[in-house]
Amino acid sequence: MTKTVDVIVVGAGVSGLKAAQELVEAGRSVVVLEANNRVGGRTKRTQVGDYIGDLGGQWVGKGQDVLLAEAKRFGITTYLQYDTGKNLLQMFGKLVSYTGNVPRVSPLALIEIALLQRRWEREMKTVPAGAPWNAPRAQEWDAITLESWILKNVRTKAAREFARLPVRSALAAEAQQVSYLWFLDVLRAAGGLEYLIGAKDGGQEAKFKGGMQQIPQRMADALGDRVVLQAPVEKIVQDSNGVRVTTLKGEFAGRFIIVATPPTAASRIQYEPHLPAMRDGLQQRMPAGTITKVIVTYSTAFWRAAGWSGQVATDDDTLGVVLDDTRDTGPAALLCFIEGRRAVEMSALGKDARKEKVIASLVRFFGPEAAHPLGYEDNDWLTEPYIHGYVGHMAPGVMTRFGPALREPCGRIHWAGTETAIEFMGYIEGGLRSGVRAAREVIARHNE
Amino acid sequence: MTKTVDVIVVGAGVSGLKAAQELVEAGRSVVVLEANNRVGGRTKRTQVGDYIGDLGGQWVGKGQDVLLAEAKRFGITTYLQYDTGKNLLQMFGKLVSYTGNVPRVSPLALIEIALLQRRWEREMKTVPAGAPWNAPRAQEWDAITLESWILKNVRTKAAREFARLPVRSALAAEAQQVSYLWFLDVLRAAGGLEYLIGAKDGGQEAKFKGGMQQIPQRMADALGDRVVLQAPVEKIVQDSNGVRVTTLKGEFAGRFIIVATPPTAASRIQYEPHLPAMRDGLQQRMPAGTITKVIVTYSTAFWRAAGWSGQVATDDDTLGVVLDDTRDTGPAALLCFIEGRRAVEMSALGKDARKEKVIASLVRFFGPEAAHPLGYEDNDWLTEPYIHGYVGHMAPGVMTRFGPALREPCGRIHWAGTETAIEFMGYIEGGLRSGVRAAREVIARHNE
Repeated sequence: MTKTVDVIVVGAGVSGLKAAQELVEAGRSVVVLEANNRVGGRTKRTQVGDYIGDLGGQWVGKGQDVLLAEAKRFGITTYLQYDTGKNLLQMFGKLVSYTGNVPRVSPLALIEIALLQRRWEREMKTVPAGAPWNAPRAQEWDAITLESWILKNVRTKAAREFARLPVRSALAAEAQQVSYLWFLDVLRAAGGLEYLIGAKDGGQEAKFKGGMQQIPQRMADALGDRVVLQAPVEKIVQDSNGVRVTTLKGEFAGRFIIVATPPTAASRIQYEPHLPAMRDGLQQRMPAGTITKVIVTYSTAFWRAAGWSGQVATDDDTLGVVLDDTRDTGPAALLCFIEGRRAVEMSALGKDARKEKVIASLVRFFGPEAAHPLGYEDNDWLTEPYIHGYVGHMAPGVMTRFGPALREPCGRIHWAGTETAIEFMGYIEGGLRSGVRAAREVIARHNE
Repeated sequence: MTKTVDVIVVGAGVSGLKAAQELVEAGRSVVVLEANNRVGGRTKRTQVGDYIGDLGGQWVGKGQDVLLAEAKRFGITTYLQYDTGKNLLQMFGKLVSYTGNVPRVSPLALIEIALLQRRWEREMKTVPAGAPWNAPRAQEWDAITLESWILKNVRTKAAREFARLPVRSALAAEAQQVSYLWFLDVLRAAGGLEYLIGAKDGGQEAKFKGGMQQIPQRMADALGDRVVLQAPVEKIVQDSNGVRVTTLKGEFAGRFIIVATPPTAASRIQYEPHLPAMRDGLQQRMPAGTITKVIVTYSTAFWRAAGWSGQVATDDDTLGVVLDDTRDTGPAALLCFIEGRRAVEMSALGKDARKEKVIASLVRFFGPEAAHPLGYEDNDWLTEPYIHGYVGHMAPGVMTRFGPALREPCGRIHWAGTETAIEFMGYIEGGLRSGVRAAREVIARHNE
């Protein structure tokens, strides 16, 4: 028996849920097909003892108006990311402390970092929003990796390492894996480097009391039985009349479909007829960022007492970034990111070995008190079913050749997901906005 | 009802068929599950009037002993690729003729081309066969695109364009899309640049009378009803006892499974338990080369009479490489490759528009006689079901981080396909050899 609706949405992450919400408000009948047994996609709730937080996306910053409105609708409030005290930088075996966003390194490196930031911000402004492939220097910038750009334009070791941090910490990818054009577009979509990596006035400014994942959960609750869990979509068939979808929970038919999954997950669906080469090629070329997110809880925030913010940027063999993740209630906590190249090795190690290595790193940063956590939890996003990692990135040659397929509908198939967002690409906010855009595209086709 | 065998093979391309053949010879029971309604994978037979040839892989060269033995077994003989007369190079709007593998360009460019070739061959020798990630300069070479290397090391426009040709013509990828380390490993696996791009003594030396695709067809015929067509594998479930596979043609169980598909096709199968992060990550990062292969037939090989070999390398907006493809019988023919960046646009145009553009290019190269073909056929590999393109390539950062997963079994799953070949990677020969290797890996596990 086939269930028939106006619009089928694939994926109950924030983009799919937001699309469904918009469609329902416009009077459309909708079903949201979610492969996993939970909603939220790359947001994920965790409870570690009395600590309740997020193993996925969690921050909110200024300008993220759709996300803030969604939180307000459900009465969910924010509190500031703890950002007081000295930060730590571990690089080339040395541990240095600093305040603000820029580490205390050699004067020459500091000058280079300042110049680098100015140049990135100047160049990102030449990248047209929504059409980075039309940047005047698009071909040149899309022919090289970010790493190539760094090696050519930055001389000091410390400034080079600094230049590799934003893409690793914010996008879970390595500088040698991504196109310089794609990186500039990421910067532009975030409004600049400070926003991308910063807490105060930046993308990591605040968190939601009770955790981010409440938001997709409440959105899903409001959609009720329109959301079907454990219904991985195997095949999407379309013709001039509509679309049909095969899942483990049966068949669904609709006039349009919004695929609101990460690009690499979208590539694992069968399409009849075959997707256009540009879209299929894009989906082959947007691998997910590699990340394991770790929560370590303690009875007190002992690092705060010692004058540390809890923030560490490190080149050690385990962690990338550490941040204070003490919530408004419950025990103190440190949030650790295992990112980029490290995430793959650490995935293979398994949870117990990861825990041992993470705690050892924290002891190096914050002393012996770090050796006695209350609790430990992590989420290896690389093996998360149907998700495979964090934000999809682009290697050189992808944006200029396949980029225009990001948001281009393929017949009755429309595309959502944070990777398709023009502003706040990679953020929850970008996911939500992409859901709004895709829903409006479909609503505008009411006569088709 | 589940059908039970010793070993399940996924994919009836040459690697899967060869693996099955080896397993049967070793006394194992086998089933080969092929998604499409034909065998041969990236080899494909075509008939255009009286012309019978290949829309996929077609050449054989010295050292391709497994392929030559297979042909001999079935009594299939070869004839030489026509390689007499002047070649054409169209570059920057100019058309020049030359003989041999190197075009007639400025003396400075010629010197650069000679130096470039010597340097590539020197550097490729430092790349260890089967472990390019262990090359002394692996990290450095895997951080940059081939295009970056060219821009840094080659000055003249003509030599730069020449340096971009091998990866485009032999691997259907653009210099800005691939890692320099990956490219060096491709060169090494082919035995050097001359072999990669050359006819005489090279990889394009000879063709099979009656076409390449006879070989997988005869291999499949010998395997009989062990080969099941139109049986796309949806899911592979493994535990300590064995594997189970779900297809449209029912369930199959075995002790081991060999996945002998392109990596991007392997990524579209569901695995339970989830594949290790390194393997899943690799499959997200080996997009298929972009190519449309075109056959144009004529009543006579008029270009030969005019002193041309039929070979053209061009930077025009349609074609990449043209070659004489007149067979041992039937009409004269030109074989045209639409490759790399051009293939995506030309896929969207559709066959009629492609034909018009291809013929217009051939008229520019060979004069008005080219305007009157007997027949035209092409194969857009980008939309070929379950295949998606030609050989999978690697962007920067992939080989060093994910490369070791290429041939590493995941529990009871073993991997074949030309991308996994240590020698002749990307060739039919590499596919066959990978099938032998995977079969032997499984045979060696007879006690498990």
